[in-house]
Amino acid sequence: MENTLSAAEAAAAEEQSSYREHLSAELEAFLGEQQAVLQDVSVESLPLLDAVSSLARGGKRLRALLSYWGWRGAGGAELGTAAVRAGTALELFQSAALIHDDIIDRSDTRRGGPSVHRRFSTAHSEAAWHLDGTHFGSSAAILAGDLCLSLSEEMFAAVGAQAAHGTPARRIFNRMRTEVMAGQYLDILEEVVGPTHEPERAVVRARNILRYKSAKYTTEHPLTLGGALAGASDELMDWYSRFALPLGEAFQLRDDVLGVFGDPVQTGKPAGDDLREGKRTVLVAYALALGGSSAQKVIADSLGREDLDDDGVTALRSLIEDSGALAATETLIEGHTRAAFDALEQMPVNAVTRAALHSLALAAVNRKA
Amino acid sequence: MENTLSAAEAAAAEEQSSYREHLSAELEAFLGEQQAVLQDVSVESLPLLDAVSSLARGGKRLRALLSYWGWRGAGGAELGTAAVRAGTALELFQSAALIHDDIIDRSDTRRGGPSVHRRFSTAHSEAAWHLDGTHFGSSAAILAGDLCLSLSEEMFAAVGAQAAHGTPARRIFNRMRTEVMAGQYLDILEEVVGPTHEPERAVVRARNILRYKSAKYTTEHPLTLGGALAGASDELMDWYSRFALPLGEAFQLRDDVLGVFGDPVQTGKPAGDDLREGKRTVLVAYALALGGSSAQKVIADSLGREDLDDDGVTALRSLIEDSGALAATETLIEGHTRAAFDALEQMPVNAVTRAALHSLALAAVNRKA
Repeated sequence: MENTLSAAEAAAAEEQSSYREHLSAELEAFLGEQQAVLQDVSVESLPLLDAVSSLARGGKRLRALLSYWGWRGAGGAELGTAAVRAGTALELFQSAALIHDDIIDRSDTRRGGPSVHRRFSTAHSEAAWHLDGTHFGSSAAILAGDLCLSLSEEMFAAVGAQAAHGTPARRIFNRMRTEVMAGQYLDILEEVVGPTHEPERAVVRARNILRYKSAKYTTEHPLTLGGALAGASDELMDWYSRFALPLGEAFQLRDDVLGVFGDPVQTGKPAGDDLREGKRTVLVAYALALGGSSAQKVIADSLGREDLDDDGVTALRSLIEDSGALAATETLIEGHTRAAFDALEQMPVNAVTRAALHSLALAAVNRKA
Repeated sequence: MENTLSAAEAAAAEEQSSYREHLSAELEAFLGEQQAVLQDVSVESLPLLDAVSSLARGGKRLRALLSYWGWRGAGGAELGTAAVRAGTALELFQSAALIHDDIIDRSDTRRGGPSVHRRFSTAHSEAAWHLDGTHFGSSAAILAGDLCLSLSEEMFAAVGAQAAHGTPARRIFNRMRTEVMAGQYLDILEEVVGPTHEPERAVVRARNILRYKSAKYTTEHPLTLGGALAGASDELMDWYSRFALPLGEAFQLRDDVLGVFGDPVQTGKPAGDDLREGKRTVLVAYALALGGSSAQKVIADSLGREDLDDDGVTALRSLIEDSGALAATETLIEGHTRAAFDALEQMPVNAVTRAALHSLALAAVNRKA
């Protein structure tokens, strides 16, 4: 058994690395074509694409890889073009979402470098251009995100007949986009409305937001999308959801914990960014529900304060830990993780796909960044 | 001749009005489906779709109508589904562009009502929600624009085989989106970089921006897209471009004139909004090139000043008029208009299509709003 698993793991790792190479090659060829289009407009428009490209070239590729193994688990061909393009489209969609998210969350850094709006506002100040550089930065980033969103779709359409109008894959792709945007809207709404709700409802609300904004999008939609492209049976699609949805919830809960307790060196984000932005995550909701009126007061006073300093961050952290919220969140992560691995064990897929999904799932819930 | 034209005009008007009804019905059915998707996420996410819907329900439908007559002129069936869906997709794309444009241009009004970001910031202040309402408004509008952009594409994919990957129609749709975003980026770049350039280059630069940001997108791409869907010959497509490109340039130049000299009651926009935003239009570029150093100084001092008052607007207007820039722009509009109508006269299309394009073109260049 040990040996079989290792052989499957090795095969999965090798195939996955080839898939990554194909995805990069597809992305580069596509960005090259786009470069020609922008060059026709004006060489001065190229920085818009450069911003998109440098972001799209990075990342863990979790969504693309899940879609690939969803495809392979349903009998799709090794390194099939449809799976390469669908994965590239998912990664471009994720890049677009990050560009706009960073404007919304006022994040100055992304993947250890400047976020796109900061990149443009820095260019503005370095060149000593006119008018308001911050506004120029956000405006350029809005356009860069729009471009990236369009490119994602263009790439998805290039999947061809398997992703045409009316196909299951197209339905998943469409629904994914609408749900993510609705979930993100709920997220920012909760930041401004949340303080008026009773703490008891906070956890329920935060978990619904997490599900649509992130969990389904990060894991369930990519995996089922890959399956749909390869013509997966309803039964297999059901298994995919039973594995991926709890995994996605665990993934995002881990993200929430890292957003408060993560090591800036590893996450590439300043400590306490989520607290300064006022994110009403499940972690914060637990602190409200478990911490009593004193915790509620501290959270009301400091969550979402842009000028929250290190002492304020430390105080909020202690409160979240002391209230039992951190432990409750870890328990939730554990439960979801167990549910995901249980489903994976019974999922009717071959050993290589199972091994691949196993290692992706482990990385998703145990990560430090 | 008089009678023939009138009969064709009447037939065009009647058919166009049926097309508008089909487009509205298609849009409503689609928005209804989307409502169900958002409702599944949470009823609280519905305001995001409402904002998109109320914008998408308005407008002159210039792009959709051009695509329809492009389709009809190439032999497409009366009220064909492909043409209805493509037109709906174009109008959704335009709505998405307007939502994000209004954030970028800091416009508080759109079509006589509040712009989308203002709609959300007003909801925020009326409900006395927490944190920064302006930021909430822009963030919600970024998401509303993203949703609308995705819906535009979803609708375009629903055109079916005629718009699938690799078809001429899909190529035009893709190119249109990329060019618009590149053109918009050049537009905001020119606002901040423009002051450092010599006035002599300003007109050339402004005309290039106008071409990609607006002219091709407003007229040429919709008309040729409709033609491509109906399998237009290369020769006909060439005629479409020869008519639509000068028309689009005239349309946008008219827009630039209205942005400075238009009647706020008719345009639904405050007087001088373009000047306050610092738009370096062809009109402004002419003033720089023709007005000499004193005009250059006034423009440098007041263009792009958010606190520009009515006196400042009046002074800039006089300067633009006295420099000969207004007359030069009107001459340019005239020349483009003539070129468009000349091409239309020779275009190998039937009388009804010609009559329809004639009246759309007249409305585009002679409008007051």
